[in-house]
Amino acid sequence: MQILDGKKLSISIKDELKIVVSEMILKPKMVIFVVGEDERSKAYIKSKIKFGQDIGALVEVKNFPVEISGSDLINEIKKANADESVDGIILQMPVPDTIDSKKVIDSILPHKDVDGLTSTNTVLLYDGKPFVVPATARGVVSLLRHYGEDPEGKHVVVLGRSKLAGKAIAQAMLANNATVTICHSKTKDLQKIISLADIVVSATGVTGLLENMITKDQIIVDVGISVGEKGLVGDISEEVKKLAKAYTPVPKGVGPMTVASLFQNLYECSVKRMGL
Amino acid sequence: MQILDGKKLSISIKDELKIVVSEMILKPKMVIFVVGEDERSKAYIKSKIKFGQDIGALVEVKNFPVEISGSDLINEIKKANADESVDGIILQMPVPDTIDSKKVIDSILPHKDVDGLTSTNTVLLYDGKPFVVPATARGVVSLLRHYGEDPEGKHVVVLGRSKLAGKAIAQAMLANNATVTICHSKTKDLQKIISLADIVVSATGVTGLLENMITKDQIIVDVGISVGEKGLVGDISEEVKKLAKAYTPVPKGVGPMTVASLFQNLYECSVKRMGL
Repeated sequence: MQILDGKKLSISIKDELKIVVSEMILKPKMVIFVVGEDERSKAYIKSKIKFGQDIGALVEVKNFPVEISGSDLINEIKKANADESVDGIILQMPVPDTIDSKKVIDSILPHKDVDGLTSTNTVLLYDGKPFVVPATARGVVSLLRHYGEDPEGKHVVVLGRSKLAGKAIAQAMLANNATVTICHSKTKDLQKIISLADIVVSATGVTGLLENMITKDQIIVDVGISVGEKGLVGDISEEVKKLAKAYTPVPKGVGPMTVASLFQNLYECSVKRMGL
Repeated sequence: MQILDGKKLSISIKDELKIVVSEMILKPKMVIFVVGEDERSKAYIKSKIKFGQDIGALVEVKNFPVEISGSDLINEIKKANADESVDGIILQMPVPDTIDSKKVIDSILPHKDVDGLTSTNTVLLYDGKPFVVPATARGVVSLLRHYGEDPEGKHVVVLGRSKLAGKAIAQAMLANNATVTICHSKTKDLQKIISLADIVVSATGVTGLLENMITKDQIIVDVGISVGEKGLVGDISEEVKKLAKAYTPVPKGVGPMTVASLFQNLYECSVKRMGL
């Protein structure tokens, strides 16, 4: 039983990025657009600021009141699009329901879309020719590869179909020539489908999944993060995951890989914009 | 053993469309852009012209020489975008390699994109909120529903991942709450995966598939069309398909449903543009 240590790999990535960024005259810069206040967002933003500082990148947080209109927000994003010093733009989710997040995200220049969530980048990923892979999906693929588990030819069963996690992971796996099954709340006979998986990726936010379903030849990637009685927990209990061949713990699994992958995206967007 | 008769259902759809179109003062109009000459395209275009005539819609074919540049083609499409009398625009594939088909397709107004292949409509389908479903995918879902086999909650295994067929069908099935597995040339252990399928959709263009894999509880949808010694054949031989609970024949299965669904898309685009 092997632990897929996302924390450890994220530190290696951080060290690599630190070196390449130190050689850049113009440091990569990310701007995070935040609307209103959300406790969980605060923790994510804090970890992005910290990672950015550690590698010598610039992270600017722009806060806006909940009352801001979508069109005003889009105008602010257009300023960042036009700003030559900005390499990456993020709209921190969630935003208030009054704002059409899809429209706002699509106002981000695809070349600065480090979250990979604009329509342009979604279609490129869907077409198997990604320009920017959403950070969680990139992190999951990197972690598997690092531990010698290339997804090509493997059967990957993904639980959950959110755009940010489940669907993006499914598309990234398909682009890497995995056979992919997407399961969700309407799936029947989950146990049988799981029994055929080489890799199970759970991205539901529902806890207590997959009990009595895991076998010792499987690899479990736990993307879920919920707040349990004893702190952060994944979709699958650590006891259940221990029955597998390998698994990502929560915390210190996919979470830190997501942040590290986001900054890999930022670095690459910055380099590509320079035309290097 | 039931035959999912796409020809028969396509005629019902044709009859329904004929009635609603007869009540329209401005008839729906589709323009097909064709670059160069392709024998297989000719047959498809002919069947579109015929269906259009039968329901009273207008189908105009615009032929261009193989030498036309992508930007000239886009200019022609922009004219059709601006033409109030045009409800649907199609770029007939294949086009010469000198033309960036993605760029040309993305120049079609999403509201006139009756093939559902623009980036805007691809993302809407991907997000589970389709505006136009690509005709083959729509045809497959309609045919299954017509025979009482709603995909919701069923395990649909799709073979092939082309944008026009396999991927579009997978997304349409997912939008209809099916559990979806996407298989392709890199898939290992296809037999085991097929054994768990409620519905198998083959869209590979490779013949002779699935021998000894089909069971009597399964539904087989054959999207493949190849030219065999005795005329058109599907991916799966009719003998193999007969072992299933139900199947689409080739010809008279998915083919006619694709044409009928395209004109349903045209009619709906026309009605939506009128703001009715």
